[in-house]
Amino acid sequence: MEFIEELRFLKEQMKFKEKVEVPRGISNIVIAGMGGSGIAAMIFQEFYSKLPVTWANDYRAPDFVSESTLFIAISYSGNTEETLSATNQAIRKKAHVVTISAGGKLQGIGTQHIAIPRTDMQPRSASGYMLIPILAGFGLFTELEADGAYKFLADLDADNAKCLAHAKAIYERSAIPVIYGSHPYKGVAYRWKTQFNENSKVLGYSNSFPELNHNDTMAIAQTYLKDKFYFMAFESGLERITKRIDVTQSITGSRFATIKPKGSSDIERMFYLLHYGDYVSYHLGRLRGVDPTDVSLIEQLKKNIA
Amino acid sequence: MEFIEELRFLKEQMKFKEKVEVPRGISNIVIAGMGGSGIAAMIFQEFYSKLPVTWANDYRAPDFVSESTLFIAISYSGNTEETLSATNQAIRKKAHVVTISAGGKLQGIGTQHIAIPRTDMQPRSASGYMLIPILAGFGLFTELEADGAYKFLADLDADNAKCLAHAKAIYERSAIPVIYGSHPYKGVAYRWKTQFNENSKVLGYSNSFPELNHNDTMAIAQTYLKDKFYFMAFESGLERITKRIDVTQSITGSRFATIKPKGSSDIERMFYLLHYGDYVSYHLGRLRGVDPTDVSLIEQLKKNIA
Repeated sequence: MEFIEELRFLKEQMKFKEKVEVPRGISNIVIAGMGGSGIAAMIFQEFYSKLPVTWANDYRAPDFVSESTLFIAISYSGNTEETLSATNQAIRKKAHVVTISAGGKLQGIGTQHIAIPRTDMQPRSASGYMLIPILAGFGLFTELEADGAYKFLADLDADNAKCLAHAKAIYERSAIPVIYGSHPYKGVAYRWKTQFNENSKVLGYSNSFPELNHNDTMAIAQTYLKDKFYFMAFESGLERITKRIDVTQSITGSRFATIKPKGSSDIERMFYLLHYGDYVSYHLGRLRGVDPTDVSLIEQLKKNIA
Repeated sequence: MEFIEELRFLKEQMKFKEKVEVPRGISNIVIAGMGGSGIAAMIFQEFYSKLPVTWANDYRAPDFVSESTLFIAISYSGNTEETLSATNQAIRKKAHVVTISAGGKLQGIGTQHIAIPRTDMQPRSASGYMLIPILAGFGLFTELEADGAYKFLADLDADNAKCLAHAKAIYERSAIPVIYGSHPYKGVAYRWKTQFNENSKVLGYSNSFPELNHNDTMAIAQTYLKDKFYFMAFESGLERITKRIDVTQSITGSRFATIKPKGSSDIERMFYLLHYGDYVSYHLGRLRGVDPTDVSLIEQLKKNIA
């Protein structure tokens, strides 16, 4: 499957019906996952805070993990060493463990396993498969939203000229992409960063409003290489954030490319923004003449540290 | 007080005796704080995980906040709008609220107030005052560690030629600093990023092992402007991480400046690394001829959005 086909397949993932079974009596949630798999944790944290949600992206399960913890382990291969290590610790601590993978060692070691149905994709292209079962398990992804998200993702597949325009602007200046999110799209901003890394082979970073008004802001105006940064900000529609985006640009004398998500709910807009970033990073990789699918260094690293 | 005197004052903060009073029966902890004040949350999360610790760096208190939540609000001025908003929500939800500030509206609205004794410093220079009461409240900062940290910080005050050497290397190449931390120094890596922003007026970012092996790694080798990034990695001493640092450099054909912390415990080494970054960012600001204390844009922003 061509990488562009993988990207376009995201909308089909909106039809995924699997759900995390949420046991009674849990008092906290831990989501373990690295890189593209961890982003599900960041995004879920922004949509659900009725219980503490902790992202574990290292070898360890937090000390508090117990029988009242819902521990969700995500890894496309099912063999990510950090995630396996943390999950095995969680099992010893008697947590309620749900695994989400397309096979591998993770499959079957928990109470519930959610099988990612396709095994021929880049892990980062399976974000719907990873995220939807968690959102749906907590009643945050309904049929209505599945239909809505499908429609808006299909629109983007049909016309992503704006994404290409951003990619061209970045490419022409050999710029470093900087993505500024805000609630509930902070996790999506980090997703863009990782997609620029993997699809475009370009370094960049993300931060979020209002946090960046306490650090980045002082540097934007006076940093060297100022023309080498390409700033993008998501419009959440929240008045306080819109004001911050405007004022930050004016006082730093810089221009941010703003991206307005389409959708009729926060979840739909989140998937739209996520997919928008897929296209910007894909187009930038193509313009640069690099292979967006190539993750050989990550594979080599896994071998060399084994 | 000269800014360099402020930096050197960090060791005196190690003598701070105030402690957060931890009530019985709490089931989770939320720490609210923006920028320099929020870093206390990130660092505490790495040293304490017997309960879920959530960092709130926005206007809202998480939905789960209740009478079984210990909610710690940190703001040097005591008037940070995001922190005040989140704290007022936490009070309405009947959380046990502890405030840490040098006055302002935050003072007195919670159950316990910890007063930051000096009111003539940059907020980001008060990291000891913000962090120690939380660590000490949970038994993680003993007299022995206070003495040890004092000694190692004093050593750095007496001789920080290595910090200056890093600053010169960054300055000579007009480079973008990239700081790679690892457990338990991920929060410190983010602290370095914010100090580069504020003290040096330079954009940069942080990430951590092993997470960066799932994204940054693919970009380091092939990014444009490759010579314009200055990579630094903290040596935690953990074998698995040392291996990752080595392999990442070799497969990407790049060199990271590694920083080995001094100290006889993780907490001492954390403070040493934190202070090390203070100096690198301070020296870089001086070399660039910018004023490390200047945060006028952040002040202007606060006025313009009011």
